[in-house]
Formats: sequence, structure tokens, C-alpha cells
Amino acid sequence: MLSLVEPYLTRSFSDENHASLEVISTSACHGGVQVFLKHSSEKIGLPMRFGIYLPPQAAYRRVPVLYYLAGLTCTEETFFAKGQAAALAATLGLALVSPDTSPRTANIAGEADDWTFGLGASFYVDATELPWSTHFKMYSYVTRELPQLVASHFRVDPAQQGIFGHSMGGHGALVCAVRNPKTFRSVSAFAPVANPMRCPWGQNAFKRYLGSNQSDWCQYDATELLRQWGYPGRILIDQGGADKFLREQLQPSALVAAASEFNQAVNFRLHAGYDHSYYFVSSFMEDHLRHHYDALSDKTHDAVVALT
Amino acid sequence: MLSLVEPYLTRSFSDENHASLEVISTSACHGGVQVFLKHSSEKIGLPMRFGIYLPPQAAYRRVPVLYYLAGLTCTEETFFAKGQAAALAATLGLALVSPDTSPRTANIAGEADDWTFGLGASFYVDATELPWSTHFKMYSYVTRELPQLVASHFRVDPAQQGIFGHSMGGHGALVCAVRNPKTFRSVSAFAPVANPMRCPWGQNAFKRYLGSNQSDWCQYDATELLRQWGYPGRILIDQGGADKFLREQLQPSALVAAASEFNQAVNFRLHAGYDHSYYFVSSFMEDHLRHHYDALSDKTHDAVVALT
Repeated sequence: MLSLVEPYLTRSFSDENHASLEVISTSACHGGVQVFLKHSSEKIGLPMRFGIYLPPQAAYRRVPVLYYLAGLTCTEETFFAKGQAAALAATLGLALVSPDTSPRTANIAGEADDWTFGLGASFYVDATELPWSTHFKMYSYVTRELPQLVASHFRVDPAQQGIFGHSMGGHGALVCAVRNPKTFRSVSAFAPVANPMRCPWGQNAFKRYLGSNQSDWCQYDATELLRQWGYPGRILIDQGGADKFLREQLQPSALVAAASEFNQAVNFRLHAGYDHSYYFVSSFMEDHLRHHYDALSDKTHDAVVALT
Repeated sequence: MLSLVEPYLTRSFSDENHASLEVISTSACHGGVQVFLKHSSEKIGLPMRFGIYLPPQAAYRRVPVLYYLAGLTCTEETFFAKGQAAALAATLGLALVSPDTSPRTANIAGEADDWTFGLGASFYVDATELPWSTHFKMYSYVTRELPQLVASHFRVDPAQQGIFGHSMGGHGALVCAVRNPKTFRSVSAFAPVANPMRCPWGQNAFKRYLGSNQSDWCQYDATELLRQWGYPGRILIDQGGADKFLREQLQPSALVAAASEFNQAVNFRLHAGYDHSYYFVSSFMEDHLRHHYDALSDKTHDAVVALT
């Protein structure tokens, strides 16, 4: 099973640096390889799973890499099984990484009782409230530990990293990018929870993960963050018009209003008739990959970040 | 929910002809619509589910249609969720139909005990042995009832129908096409069970569905059928070289040997490193759609069938 992934490693798996990295499966895919891995996460303090698609180019040179954050109830497999990104990623030479949506082995009482909170529903925050604060440190995991781990084992370019996601993961991607524009130099989202402080999903999750002080919530609210910091690049957001979560939970218009107010470059596309499923996500996947590919090839981002 | 599918219907759903056809879900997808339906099957004598992808062109003209048969343990959703066919189908103007892999409500004792037999494992035969013979009539369902049902409700061209599938479904597709070249004017398969009479999966299933008389099995064995009848067109078969079922169960080389012996046009491609998963199937999906599209546009098939 290792043989398929071996050409893509910067160092051999027999190296002790790989001690904590376990290959779960490898599958040839569009000329590259789809790999699922497990490792002992330092930030989370538990084993974590993630998937990586390595395009053929990553066997001989460092390639740009996109991080994808999935939505509520999803896992590290969802994006690779349903996202339909590999064909174009293989053509453009983009690596794709998707982590699980929460720790799975914290064994916290009630963690599986609510599909919008707990297991599969980390909201990509660093929880500060017990019992969640012990292991639910997904923000640090996604923005620091995982990119470092990936870059140390695979031929990806840490200077060409983008991030995107769907629903809860769209929220996560926007937050991670706006707070870390030097780490994530391109960003996009499918149907993101755009203003979580003002919707039931977000309020429930933030209260339990972060406590009752709403000023602590702003650092995880894309709309609030954009108001405060902006992002040195155009943000692509696709939204289905027939999405049943649009009005109550997602509220992209709040983000668009903030962008309008603060001169933030946004491409917001409302697609009539499309719902919240991966039939929607996959329909516009190619546009997102091209958005990132173009943005990561554009040196303007560097110049703007340098000025801020 | 009906509104998305309405433009694609040849007659309104309020028409009593639709009485037995129930829409389970609709999702906009790549400019067309992904629909899942349930209906009361005459051949099966039970409710059956199927999915259909309607490309944008099917809103105003009859389009070619491809039937996809999924493999063991799969459902009518597998192909649409993981096959990555919709983007190109929308461009080419191809409708895609995929039925469930067996009846689900026969409630036969032990039907779920073996993942290679019974539920999700019909092998697309008309069973002749009790208790299976009462409802497991998938061959008649796929070759006659389903195409008629689809053509009577949606804008598809019955003169431009192809069939393909994966694993058990690759077997089914080959059998359906070779026995019905006027119904299915193009055929292809991903990792088909190519010679089921000679492999454990097929022998187990055929014995229990069809009885012990092996001469009754030939009509459901693609390799045997090709020896006897041939097919008036080129057959495309893709196979992963790292597929763990290749040597014991799939045996495409038996089919290739029959083709070689009987001057049957086959394009058999062995892809080194690829396994049996949808990471393999999706990697070559575009080639299959183009194979069917080209074959269905080629009038040679008609001429050859007319001669036989």
C-alpha cells in the first residue's frame, strides 16, 4: 500500500520522522494518488485523520496545496468522494488536503447527541470551555499543525497554500484565511455559515465551545473579521438559491454587506435552483480550483500582505 | 421539489400516467437536475428506486441516455455521488440513469447475510429459483421496464441508449448489451465480473438464483455470450492493475481471449496501480462517456445490427 505514495514523499516512510504518520489507504486516482492517513496530533492530543490528493506533478516538484474544510456530519473522506476535484487538480498540479471535521475519540458525554455540535461539528474553533477545550483545538490544528505536517512529508509549497470549504467548513475556511493571510493566500467557500454569531447553529456552538462572552466570538465570525481586517485578495463565494439553510443559518448577505462597506473584493454568486448538497458543490468545484490556482500564481497577494 | 424536474417531463406529473412515479429528491447539478425516484415495478412486483441525471439539453430535446449498473453493496445513489459523470454529461447532453442494485423489500430470510448475494447483489439476472424468483427479476427490469418507463416520462431518445457499469454492474452491462444490441447500442465496463461462471462470486450467485444447471448460466456470462453472439460495436473495458479482485473474481482476460478468438472489437485497458474503488472509476469516467457519445452518434451500429 505504501508503494503508491512512496514517490510523493520528501523522505522515506522508514524515516523516524514518519513514526506518527500511518497510511490508512492509497488509491491511484487521475494519474496521482489519493491517500488517507492517521497521525497523533499534538494540538488535539488525540489521533486525527486526514486525506490528501497528490497530483502527478507532486512526484517531482513542490506544488500549490489547497486545504478543504468539510461541513457538519462530514469526515475527511467527504470531499474526496463527492467533491469531484481530482481531475482538474491533476491537470493543474494542485495538492488537496481535507481533515476530519472534529476529533473522534475524545469520548465526551453527549458529543454525538446533536448533529450541529460536537462530533463532526467542531466549527473549526479552539474551544476554551470545558470539557471541549481539552481536545477540540481544530483552529490551531488546521492553521498550523496540519500544514506543517503536510509540508514536512509531501512535496507541497508552503508559500502557495489556499483554503476553502463547504457550509461549516466554508465558515472555517474564511476565518482561517482572514486571520492568516500569509498562511492561506487564497480563499473561497461554498454556502458558508457567513455570520455564525447571528445564526442558531453558530450561537449554539460558540456558546458551548467559547463561553457566553460574545466578544470572544468575533475572532471566529468571517463577517466580523472582514469588517476588522479585510483580506488581501478576492474571495469567491458560491451559494445555492434553493438551499434550505440559506436564510436562517448561512446569511451570506451579511458578509456581502461588510465587504461592500469596507471595499473588500468579493465574488458572490447566487445560483438559482441549487441546494446545499454536493450536487451543488461539485457543480462549481472547477471554478473554485481555478480561482485558487490563479490567485496563488498572482504575486499581488504578497505585495498587499507586505503593506499591511 | 417538483418544480426543478417539471421542465424535463414529457407530460405533467399531474397526469395519471405518473401515478406510480414518486419523486424522492431533486438537486440542481451542472446546469441540469439530479432526480431520485421511486416507482411500483411491474416486473419486480415491489417498489424500486432509481436516479436520473438530466442535462440541460433534455429540457427541450430528446437526448441520448446511458444506463449505469452499480456493483455489490451499492445503491441507485452511488454512481451519482461518486462517479463524477455529470459535468461532462451536461456538456455533451447525455442523460444518465442508475437503478438500485436489487429489490429492497422482498424480505427474504437471509437476504442480507452475504454482501455478495441477495440485497445489493442481484447480479442483474432474472432469478428462476425460489424464493428469489418471485421478485429478483433485475434483468427484465433493466433491459425492458426501466428504459420504457424513462422514455415515457423524460426527453430521452430510445434509439440512442447505452449501458455501462462497475464490477457486478460491469457484468450486468455487458450481458444486457450483448443480448440486446438493438436496445443498448453502446457498452462499456469498469472492472467487470467478466466470466462469472468461472469465479466464486458468480458461481455462488448463479447457483442460488438460477439453479445448478450450468447451461442456464451461459446467458448471464459476458464471456460466453460474446463467444456465441458477439456485439456490433467496440467494447471499452477499464481495469485497475492493483484491483484486489482482479485475478480471482473479475478475470477480464477470459473475455479478452474470447474477443481475440471471435474477432470482437474490444478496447481493454489495464491501468497499473489503480484499485477497485471509485477513485479508479471516476478517473476514467470521461473516457467512458465519450466512448458512448461517439458510439451512439455512429450509424455503423445500425448497419451491423441490421445485418445480423
